[in-house]
Amino acid sequence: MILSPLELVREDLQSVERRMLEFSLPPARLIQDALDHLLAAGGKRLRPTLSVLFGRMLSVPDQPLIDFSASLELIHTATLVHDDVVDDSPLRRGVPTVNARLAAGTAILIGDFLFACAAELAAAAGSLAVMQKFAATLSIIVDGEVRQITKADSTCTLEEYERQIRSKTAALFEVSCEGAALLAQDSVAAKHAAAYGRAFGMAFQIADDLMDFGGDSTGAGKPVGHDLHQGLLTLPAIFFFHDHADDPDVAAFQSGKRDPERLNRLVGKIGASEAVELSRKRARHHIEEAVASLASFPAGNHRSALEALAVAIV
Amino acid sequence: MILSPLELVREDLQSVERRMLEFSLPPARLIQDALDHLLAAGGKRLRPTLSVLFGRMLSVPDQPLIDFSASLELIHTATLVHDDVVDDSPLRRGVPTVNARLAAGTAILIGDFLFACAAELAAAAGSLAVMQKFAATLSIIVDGEVRQITKADSTCTLEEYERQIRSKTAALFEVSCEGAALLAQDSVAAKHAAAYGRAFGMAFQIADDLMDFGGDSTGAGKPVGHDLHQGLLTLPAIFFFHDHADDPDVAAFQSGKRDPERLNRLVGKIGASEAVELSRKRARHHIEEAVASLASFPAGNHRSALEALAVAIV
Repeated sequence: MILSPLELVREDLQSVERRMLEFSLPPARLIQDALDHLLAAGGKRLRPTLSVLFGRMLSVPDQPLIDFSASLELIHTATLVHDDVVDDSPLRRGVPTVNARLAAGTAILIGDFLFACAAELAAAAGSLAVMQKFAATLSIIVDGEVRQITKADSTCTLEEYERQIRSKTAALFEVSCEGAALLAQDSVAAKHAAAYGRAFGMAFQIADDLMDFGGDSTGAGKPVGHDLHQGLLTLPAIFFFHDHADDPDVAAFQSGKRDPERLNRLVGKIGASEAVELSRKRARHHIEEAVASLASFPAGNHRSALEALAVAIV
Repeated sequence: MILSPLELVREDLQSVERRMLEFSLPPARLIQDALDHLLAAGGKRLRPTLSVLFGRMLSVPDQPLIDFSASLELIHTATLVHDDVVDDSPLRRGVPTVNARLAAGTAILIGDFLFACAAELAAAAGSLAVMQKFAATLSIIVDGEVRQITKADSTCTLEEYERQIRSKTAALFEVSCEGAALLAQDSVAAKHAAAYGRAFGMAFQIADDLMDFGGDSTGAGKPVGHDLHQGLLTLPAIFFFHDHADDPDVAAFQSGKRDPERLNRLVGKIGASEAVELSRKRARHHIEEAVASLASFPAGNHRSALEALAVAIV
């Protein structure tokens, strides 16, 4: 899954980059280094890409669109910074995390600072509807994270999994698309854009989770089997566990026996099983939803790009 | 310094409490306990008291005023939760902190959750101007915290100190007052309310810092001398250091010799010196500013209450 930035939004994304950097004007040299590092670390800028495509398709003026798009990438970065402190992760994308390079306390404040800058940029877009949606999304994301860390058992159904990834990932994609339509003050478009973003985000997270079982190569810097080693059940594991409840490695995992050798064998079994194709099928289902949500938008470059981005996920 | 809730705002503050609790509808049992504990832990609800007084004085309707006021207390609580993780504090007001009772990671997410709820409540107040001010204030607060933890040396001038407490404390008091006036769509009142809140916050923080040198009894649960033991120079210390540069304990502190015995002696010296009265004088200067900012508001119960609250600080 490689979604390269599209020619169509290249210039707008450069404006987004500038706005992100100038807005998160660093309060101190220490945090400046961390921010340069964080924001320059790249990533696909997928959320601003979606908001810019919807915004341009719906003729949203430059300033609010760029400000809103920049706020999305900052909020995404803020959640990554806090996630890494919470999980005590040493690496992200193969690069040391903020908490690994500085202190955990500094990383907390850097995350807070990015949240604050994101809120300021979203407010600068000048739409109360966007701001309300933005704040509600922030709640949904954190709520999902709290549920995840406070979850007592290791079982997980398809429904629970989809609820989890909806808050963890799909909510921010949803507001990225819906917010752009709200800036155009088009409430019907906002509904369809929200549906596209939500379905896009679901498919995106399933594809990401598939990589954990040796799927398409990723560049995400996560070793294969990482989630399962962390005790996190994602879709391929859920399908496999359901169909192979009597597999001795599944039974061992369920009863808490999780030595690395056994886990690696289990990751291999899942990756070679029909659970991979079942997961891909579920991702494709969401991609079809996403594409179908575009039906009422005007045909043209922007809509084609949104279709192509969705289809490229799996 | 004891500012008891005023009869005048009692009912409104009860609505604020209800709104805070119902809005931060807990995502999991674990966090519910923490929230009950946190929000019930009380505190003086000073920020909602100020916003309600300004709001009622300016005839702001119930719903936006209560929502905005509740958001202030939630954001204040969120910053305390994160501060305690950053400082690794075991106690606040003599009660174990969230990070002491649960894990640091959980405390980070609880703080994020409270920020998100605060943003939602502020957005629910339905004013873009308030939301912009709210987001900008969040930036200022975090910026101040980052500056404080990344500060390399232990010297501090009056100007630096006042800049610090302006972001750390006065900014949230400022938006509490200004935001209520913005809800009344009265931009002239907003300017004066902001000036009151800022000056109130400055005086409030100086009074709080004075307690660290054995001032009026506090109930804040902070042992006397706590700031200095943490290496934090507040106003009484700054005045004392300036006038007693040749004191051997001052010289020892400056050169990094900070054994508990020496520090306790220094705290005693500062508390018995003219630095206390100089600091009180500075606080009174801000209180006068605060009271003067009320001149253009209609005389009556609300204005009298705001005057009384300011004067009660020192």
